[in-house]
Amino acid sequence: MAHTGCHTFDLEFAVRDYECDLQGIVNHATYLNYLEHTRHRFLHSLGLDFADLHSRGHSLVVTRLEVDYLASLRSGDRFVVHSEMTRASRLRFAFNHRIERLGDGADILRARVIGTSVSRGGRPGLPPEIAVLFGADA
Amino acid sequence: MAHTGCHTFDLEFAVRDYECDLQGIVNHATYLNYLEHTRHRFLHSLGLDFADLHSRGHSLVVTRLEVDYLASLRSGDRFVVHSEMTRASRLRFAFNHRIERLGDGADILRARVIGTSVSRGGRPGLPPEIAVLFGADA
Amino acid sequence: MAHTGCHTFDLEFAVRDYECDLQGIVNHATYLNYLEHTRHRFLHSLGLDFADLHSRGHSLVVTRLEVDYLASLRSGDRFVVHSEMTRASRLRFAFNHRIERLGDGADILRARVIGTSVSRGGRPGLPPEIAVLFGADA
Amino acid sequence: MAHTGCHTFDLEFAVRDYECDLQGIVNHATYLNYLEHTRHRFLHSLGLDFADLHSRGHSLVVTRLEVDYLASLRSGDRFVVHSEMTRASRLRFAFNHRIERLGDGADILRARVIGTSVSRGGRPGLPPEIAVLFGADA
Repeated sequence: MAHTGCHTFDLEFAVRDYECDLQGIVNHATYLNYLEHTRHRFLHSLGLDFADLHSRGHSLVVTRLEVDYLASLRSGDRFVVHSEMTRASRLRFAFNHRIERLGDGADILRARVIGTSVSRGGRPGLPPEIAVLFGADA
Repeated sequence: MAHTGCHTFDLEFAVRDYECDLQGIVNHATYLNYLEHTRHRFLHSLGLDFADLHSRGHSLVVTRLEVDYLASLRSGDRFVVHSEMTRASRLRFAFNHRIERLGDGADILRARVIGTSVSRGGRPGLPPEIAVLFGADA
Repeated sequence: MAHTGCHTFDLEFAVRDYECDLQGIVNHATYLNYLEHTRHRFLHSLGLDFADLHSRGHSLVVTRLEVDYLASLRSGDRFVVHSEMTRASRLRFAFNHRIERLGDGADILRARVIGTSVSRGGRPGLPPEIAVLFGADA
Repeated sequence: MAHTGCHTFDLEFAVRDYECDLQGIVNHATYLNYLEHTRHRFLHSLGLDFADLHSRGHSLVVTRLEVDYLASLRSGDRFVVHSEMTRASRLRFAFNHRIERLGDGADILRARVIGTSVSRGGRPGLPPEIAVLFGADA
């Protein structure tokens, strides 16, 4: 079969100075932007486009987050968001993320993000394009 | 006549700490967020809703900005965005903004923002709801 | 005693259109901005200033988040962030947040945010100004 | 001489979906983030670090912006910020920016950004590290 139940994806970033707050560290909300961008590139690598899914009536939404902040990123830092995607339930998918700073390999953040797809009528449910990623027994 | 060619509107804000950057001052791009929110509330006070206009095929877009930054806002500051709206040409409207810090009355910023409305087909042009704000000779 | 172990605070907001993403709903990371601003106003109501604490060498940082997204905010919505603060451990404090949409009272989000204070040397620990909020047995 | 009065620098970006607003286009304020990040990387390529300058008492600030928005970037677009830096006056430097979309080469934006450096005491003035970039007759 083409698709197994688990996929992985990595994306490299550089901190942008406007992402740092008055403490000189990346603001804690900005990490969610990094994770979201990684997820959308991840989905894109699997043939799914966030904006295109939305225009066809399937909105991907986050339903739950758990984030552990282990150390802070600062101006000049480069880092990688490591990601894996699995199915969390019939209607939900899960991403596990880990951010690693380049250079010293420090563990910066670990997160688990649960999401689903909501159709225009408001009903949750994975569109076939996503369900197929997790295999036939979905 | 109900509407003359010029309208004015003021909106008060408080700096939020996440809007400050590593220099401890509000990031220069964030002022455009303040101005945009003020314009949308301004239009709303005149019966126009940005999101609703978009859903009916009229996208309001900025075509030109001129901004003079005179002093910086910091954590804890409160301020007012003073705004006036006029017609700039047959297809364009203009907002003049001034940001005044509360407490000491300092002049923080002056800006001129030119915008237009783009219809779904891509043609610029003011929808009747906006044109009427500037009088019959539009 | 002046301070018990639990404090509560509410803050009202209006959605700003630039906070909505291409799905027309408030981006999930933006809710963390709302919660942060509420916490900083909350601390301010108790005599603590985030920027001032930082300038004196105490950086307040988030160490863990749990967020449940129950419904989405959209353009035009007004809402209240309800918050309570308690001590989570010797070195950590916790905020429980709930976002309620005004008008229909819908439950939008629930979150638990754990934080600590890091001194300039890098050691975690609550400065006396914060510790006193939780009572003498801290 | 190593440095002439004019320097150029290009930086490539991809639109991140959270940068798009409810109209499905990159919010107009976000372009200033792109330009700022490019300027900071530009300065870095010349041996100057924004955060480091700040920690040594020199804050680089924008004093004036002029931006023409010619077309919109959308989800999935890649683009280049073309930049050149010149001295605008004894105390001010200027950046001319142009954003070009990759793929079709469309002209997206043109901007002129004037800045200066403010020392801790509040006086404007270019630190020697910046003045030297513009030649000995500065």
